[in-house]
Amino acid sequence: MITIAVDAMGGDHAPRPEVEGAVQAARELGVRILLVGLAPELKKELAKHPHRGLPIEIVPATEVITMDDSPTHAFRKKKDSSAHVATKLVRGGQADALVSAGNTGAVMAVARFGLGTLSSVDRVALAAPFPTSRGGTAVLLDVGANVDSKPAHLVQFAVMGEIYYRAIFGTRRPKVALLSIGEEESKGNELTREAYSRLKLSSLNFTGNVEGRDIFNGSVDVIVCDGFIGNIALKISEGVAQHIAAMLKEALQSTISSQVGYVLSRKAYKSFRKKIDYSEYGGAPLLGVKGVTVIGHGSSNPLAIKNAIRVATELVRGGVNERIEQELATIPVPVEA
Amino acid sequence: MITIAVDAMGGDHAPRPEVEGAVQAARELGVRILLVGLAPELKKELAKHPHRGLPIEIVPATEVITMDDSPTHAFRKKKDSSAHVATKLVRGGQADALVSAGNTGAVMAVARFGLGTLSSVDRVALAAPFPTSRGGTAVLLDVGANVDSKPAHLVQFAVMGEIYYRAIFGTRRPKVALLSIGEEESKGNELTREAYSRLKLSSLNFTGNVEGRDIFNGSVDVIVCDGFIGNIALKISEGVAQHIAAMLKEALQSTISSQVGYVLSRKAYKSFRKKIDYSEYGGAPLLGVKGVTVIGHGSSNPLAIKNAIRVATELVRGGVNERIEQELATIPVPVEA
Repeated sequence: MITIAVDAMGGDHAPRPEVEGAVQAARELGVRILLVGLAPELKKELAKHPHRGLPIEIVPATEVITMDDSPTHAFRKKKDSSAHVATKLVRGGQADALVSAGNTGAVMAVARFGLGTLSSVDRVALAAPFPTSRGGTAVLLDVGANVDSKPAHLVQFAVMGEIYYRAIFGTRRPKVALLSIGEEESKGNELTREAYSRLKLSSLNFTGNVEGRDIFNGSVDVIVCDGFIGNIALKISEGVAQHIAAMLKEALQSTISSQVGYVLSRKAYKSFRKKIDYSEYGGAPLLGVKGVTVIGHGSSNPLAIKNAIRVATELVRGGVNERIEQELATIPVPVEA
Repeated sequence: MITIAVDAMGGDHAPRPEVEGAVQAARELGVRILLVGLAPELKKELAKHPHRGLPIEIVPATEVITMDDSPTHAFRKKKDSSAHVATKLVRGGQADALVSAGNTGAVMAVARFGLGTLSSVDRVALAAPFPTSRGGTAVLLDVGANVDSKPAHLVQFAVMGEIYYRAIFGTRRPKVALLSIGEEESKGNELTREAYSRLKLSSLNFTGNVEGRDIFNGSVDVIVCDGFIGNIALKISEGVAQHIAAMLKEALQSTISSQVGYVLSRKAYKSFRKKIDYSEYGGAPLLGVKGVTVIGHGSSNPLAIKNAIRVATELVRGGVNERIEQELATIPVPVEA
């Protein structure tokens, strides 16, 4: 049975959604859960949910990383945090994967240094799933594990993203693209132009450059970029979505007829708001670390936690790390500096 | 009287919105307009609008740059295009500013090489205005005039953006920020960290880093970034807005009650859609060229054209280029490479 270590103290509302999501996952996905965190709190929370016979255990950790902790502080000074203990369970083989909705920077640091990097990987990448207009999913990576990437790193991100996409979404030959500022090979900056020339020689289903607007139109599956760009892209998408939702609400409160209209169409809105809520899409895997790691949004609800556990389970089942090692071993391009 | 050369053949629906917007501008803003393009078409279009006594003249140009023309092809091969002729009017002093809703890359190339760069400016920058949640405007630059910027270029963008913002929005000390991936000075990539250390020593009202989501929340006025990042940011914002509008429409068509709701709240929607339509916000100035240049969205309607002419007029009136020269002359930092 696959075992998932859940950092139960990470999210904004921890440990409530973590425990509820974990119980659902244990029941529905047939996985064993190690709930890591402050034992008394976890016991109390777990007692609220029927879980008799389910493979759920509590593993105590005495410290909690907060959203205000810097990654360095969290990594160096909170050695008995739930994220550290969960990571140790993966390193020691007691768990197959780590799931956390904690401080993204801190969890990345703990997982990256605690687990180490796969031997053929130079830089890890955080891969964020986005809903597309066609009802599918596109994955953008890296969204912030690294900055100042070199062309060879982008090639590795492309390989890792493609393997992850295939494992999770079942697409045999996912379409891989570079995020740039024009479709032609000559468009972009030094980094993307060089990465383009390498990707077109690779065995990937590389379709060329896409622009920012194409992330959401479903024309490609895996979109590769430097982590500085990817993080800005992710945050802007969240910002625009919030901004638009706020403006819409304001507009609908402006007249009586639009208020009545809002009441009548409330159900449609609810489904709409759910679609633009990125936390519904499970978590973002940190690809390239030795051990499957999935990081959820800080505001994850129980469904998002369950989905993150599902993604982690599928990555373990699909042998994603072994495939990444094999695939990258076939790419002879040396990485600069 | 300030004279504006309008490239009347540039936009997706040219010359209809260009001519209508120009007539409105001549009437309401007290400016003289030179409509540049295919004379027979312009005469015919102009005849549709009452313009007796208004200072509007047609200046013939025999070629048209299309959205499919590469900037290089447009610049080198279409020397009698409306964009070229309008640019020549500015260079020759017959017009004070150029307004175009044409192919952005092509217009930038024609204006940049046709007019030249201000003596104290190393790289020009395209500055895009964004609506904010607080009802104000934030300006993002560069959104695609250059890629692979150096720290000193970002400092110049900050100075140019600040002067532009003051001239157009009347804010005495606009808040200037760097687009990055965390608020702390240590966050970001090599480029932004070095730019941060220079900006904090400048005389600007520099407030530090902002993240992608902050572009829309109105916390700062001028946001500086490399053109590769800025172009992706702009396109993503447009993409998310379109994506959300499409999903919303779909959701509202799903049940009878939500269809009725939609009808009742139609007016609220219209105002909402107008707010998220970036083409309503006039044009984006190309800062740093010798001569005021404002580039509108390809899908500009007459109002957007009029607004772009208004922005150009205010930049001329505010002596923005003279101020940029003066201000940059006080910055002794050498530009690399």
